[in-house]
Amino acid sequence: MQIKEEIALISRGAIDLISPGELTEKLQLSRKNKKPLIVKAGFDPTARDIHLGHTVLLRKLRQFQDLGHIVYFLIGDFTAQVGDPSGRMQLRPLLSSKEIKDNAQTYTTQAFKILDRKKTKVVFNSSWYSKMSLSQFSAILSHYTVARLLERDDFSKRFRQNQPLSMLEFVYPLLQGYDSVMLDADIEIGGSDQKFNLIVGRHLQQAFGKKPQVVITLPLLTGLDGRDKMSKSLGNYIGITDDSKDMFGKVMSISDELMKEYYHLLTDFDLSEIEKIHPKEAKIKLAEFIVSCYYGKEEAQKQKKEFERVFSHRKIPEQINAYKCQDSIVNIIEVLYAEKLVKSKNEARRLISQGGVSIVDKGILQEEELKVDKEIVLKIGKKRFLKLLPNL
Amino acid sequence: MQIKEEIALISRGAIDLISPGELTEKLQLSRKNKKPLIVKAGFDPTARDIHLGHTVLLRKLRQFQDLGHIVYFLIGDFTAQVGDPSGRMQLRPLLSSKEIKDNAQTYTTQAFKILDRKKTKVVFNSSWYSKMSLSQFSAILSHYTVARLLERDDFSKRFRQNQPLSMLEFVYPLLQGYDSVMLDADIEIGGSDQKFNLIVGRHLQQAFGKKPQVVITLPLLTGLDGRDKMSKSLGNYIGITDDSKDMFGKVMSISDELMKEYYHLLTDFDLSEIEKIHPKEAKIKLAEFIVSCYYGKEEAQKQKKEFERVFSHRKIPEQINAYKCQDSIVNIIEVLYAEKLVKSKNEARRLISQGGVSIVDKGILQEEELKVDKEIVLKIGKKRFLKLLPNL
Repeated sequence: MQIKEEIALISRGAIDLISPGELTEKLQLSRKNKKPLIVKAGFDPTARDIHLGHTVLLRKLRQFQDLGHIVYFLIGDFTAQVGDPSGRMQLRPLLSSKEIKDNAQTYTTQAFKILDRKKTKVVFNSSWYSKMSLSQFSAILSHYTVARLLERDDFSKRFRQNQPLSMLEFVYPLLQGYDSVMLDADIEIGGSDQKFNLIVGRHLQQAFGKKPQVVITLPLLTGLDGRDKMSKSLGNYIGITDDSKDMFGKVMSISDELMKEYYHLLTDFDLSEIEKIHPKEAKIKLAEFIVSCYYGKEEAQKQKKEFERVFSHRKIPEQINAYKCQDSIVNIIEVLYAEKLVKSKNEARRLISQGGVSIVDKGILQEEELKVDKEIVLKIGKKRFLKLLPNL
Repeated sequence: MQIKEEIALISRGAIDLISPGELTEKLQLSRKNKKPLIVKAGFDPTARDIHLGHTVLLRKLRQFQDLGHIVYFLIGDFTAQVGDPSGRMQLRPLLSSKEIKDNAQTYTTQAFKILDRKKTKVVFNSSWYSKMSLSQFSAILSHYTVARLLERDDFSKRFRQNQPLSMLEFVYPLLQGYDSVMLDADIEIGGSDQKFNLIVGRHLQQAFGKKPQVVITLPLLTGLDGRDKMSKSLGNYIGITDDSKDMFGKVMSISDELMKEYYHLLTDFDLSEIEKIHPKEAKIKLAEFIVSCYYGKEEAQKQKKEFERVFSHRKIPEQINAYKCQDSIVNIIEVLYAEKLVKSKNEARRLISQGGVSIVDKGILQEEELKVDKEIVLKIGKKRFLKLLPNL
């Protein structure tokens, strides 16, 4: 692959790329020296589960791995512990060391459904920050001004609106940025909301005499509600450990608009091809693809069928004809013919044998005779329904 | 002494006292528990010499010692080393550990000219900050907001004027304030420019579950120029290790206006009494007092005389009468009478015997006869001069 093509691939879906020139240079140098680039991405160890929102990033990291580079999967365990210590001198650990390790284990296991395990290095920022002295931290502080940090949108907003912004929160970007110094990151990838912090990383690398990392930001995936970004706390997410049925169903629940975004950010499908097919079919195709990523093709196929069965049920019109049975057992061929749902008994027979008649909530009708001891809804073909009422 | 009187003494000359109620409570508790209060004051170890500006503070500390309390003389050696590290990870030590110790030694030796050595504890803030981890520091950071720090006048001014304010400078007040937490300070005394930092100390003590220190600020002594605050870098200072002659002379050089300030801040004299005497006399009295503080009364007396001798010389009018001597030895009584500087020879005789006639640059005339082999200037009484020209 030409470097030009690599850059096209890397840029696909990115919001920011700072800067294309530096990226080209790094890719060239990597080839020349046969030295893979270090691609950093940070993750929060307080969460145990990865949802589709995270996979936008993971897929991009995987692309880099497929191009031969190394991913540093940074677990921000130190920064996660920097919570409100309520008067204590030592910070209250939000999570025990064991919990963090367990979470990281669960988390990375999930991430490896997308990432190449052999080209991934899992690192914890506590390994440098837990040993860092105030003197060392002071050096970091000396390289940043108050004004520059206040440029961060949410900081300046809180400052202007007189909402408390603690000094601890204020130094977060410096901690996150200094991770890049410690890792010698060539590239950092993050959500678009991380742009500021990623750029701090560039500045700190330069301040400490290193080459600045290339910054790539990706769009934040919108949640199932079609409004907020996908997040666990908002409940609008599809977890990659959701069971295959839920996963399929959740994808099917999104709007046609959102479907386009998901195709764009979660798949490599050619969007122009997708636009040619019916939205409902496209959505099924998307759901099938997403389930197949985490459960394989066979399971995805199964969920598709299962969904279609349930889906059919949901499409029963509110007003459908009812047929009052005279007996506890009825011959469906007779019934369909009598109700004029088929033109001939042969057609009815053929329809049943091809699986074209089903009992809603039960599945395909196997026999021509059916015991009716309670209300049963039949689906005939794709659109017609008939209610059978028992003879009580 | 009643607590009321103690408070009056402590308040004398203070700009801020936060708060009188808390001070009363602390003084009462100290008496009740027979436990001296801890009075903290911070000093910069980059300076080797104490000047009169510092003594305003030292005199106030001494007052506390005389009331039975303990002074924690804090050498800010860690904070002094927090300079611009220019890309280094470790902070560049501005001063070596030995230099700091030497400076501290010199500095405290000077301070002990005012402080009671037995009631003074010299402490270095490196003893806690050099061991402090980032985690511990994070706890401090969590207790302060950006907005609150930006309330400091010089910070907000620099921020508004787009002058760089590094994050390291920004956290200084927190470091200085946390010193009070470490020392369990009951009271902190500082110059009026330190008010903000001293109040940060109060807040941090409360945040860490302690009683807030009482804050006392004192005026900054104006330098010899009568304009800026006394400081070594501006050269407008009187060092307490200046030699006694310089010290005396420098005090004599200040304006009458400044003299009042110095009386107020550097002495315990009753100002209403001072206002009754002639400004020149008052200034000599002030100079004599200040020299006596550092060199004893005898030396002060000597410098007073020496100054008066030189001072007299300087006051010789440019145009004075000349007396051309006919002989190499002249009788001064005859000369004064001839020149009509006295009404009678008896008056001349009395004047000389009382030391009222002096040879400028030499001192009081002891004999009635004087050898005149070069030009000599006589001073008669306070204002009259006569030039004796030799008979060559």
